[in-house]
Amino acid sequence: MRIPILKLNNYLLISIQTEIDDQTAIQFQEDLLDEIYKTESSGVVIDLTSVDIIDSFIAKVLGDVVTMSDLMGAKVVLTGIQPAVAMTLIDLGINMKNVPTALDLEQGLLKLHKELGV
Amino acid sequence: MRIPILKLNNYLLISIQTEIDDQTAIQFQEDLLDEIYKTESSGVVIDLTSVDIIDSFIAKVLGDVVTMSDLMGAKVVLTGIQPAVAMTLIDLGINMKNVPTALDLEQGLLKLHKELGV
Repeated sequence: MRIPILKLNNYLLISIQTEIDDQTAIQFQEDLLDEIYKTESSGVVIDLTSVDIIDSFIAKVLGDVVTMSDLMGAKVVLTGIQPAVAMTLIDLGINMKNVPTALDLEQGLLKLHKELGV
Repeated sequence: MRIPILKLNNYLLISIQTEIDDQTAIQFQEDLLDEIYKTESSGVVIDLTSVDIIDSFIAKVLGDVVTMSDLMGAKVVLTGIQPAVAMTLIDLGINMKNVPTALDLEQGLLKLHKELGV
């Protein structure tokens, strides 16, 4: 399966709502970078509200995708990070220090507006 | 698999991006109606941009989901309907006469704003 990527104005919205396996995660990474390139999006919101738990591989892919998007010029905001997910990310030393986060999709979009100064 | 449903303010956004099988379609119908109820959303945008072709069963489910959402008080806007999909819907006599449509997600949201007068 593929994780749907929605384009809204010059942002991309992604809501991860299922347990994703390694293959899906890799596919998502590719798809998202392709979409950023194709749509020339300046911002991305990845909503993790429905993700209860993540394993080390998915956490790494997520960390990578943030860094890669940044390299391509798109700012990523992560939203809806649950306690267990926050703990996994920190335990694994995934560096999310410079990644803006927000409570939900609306707050995430507001944050992007602020970050990008538009 | 389940089709992710994103909540943005008092709207729900859905982008159908894969070929969906009958089971996924039924699950989507249930999930969407549940979400409308839970989130008290007043509008729904279903984006079909990535759907090249639909079969009669999926077309029927789609027609039903629009009517059901309407019954529950949520206005549905369909966006990105491709030629082949439009033909299938009409050929099958699926009544989309009163369903507002739009080119893409942004236009769909604008249309919802207009329809709902907010």
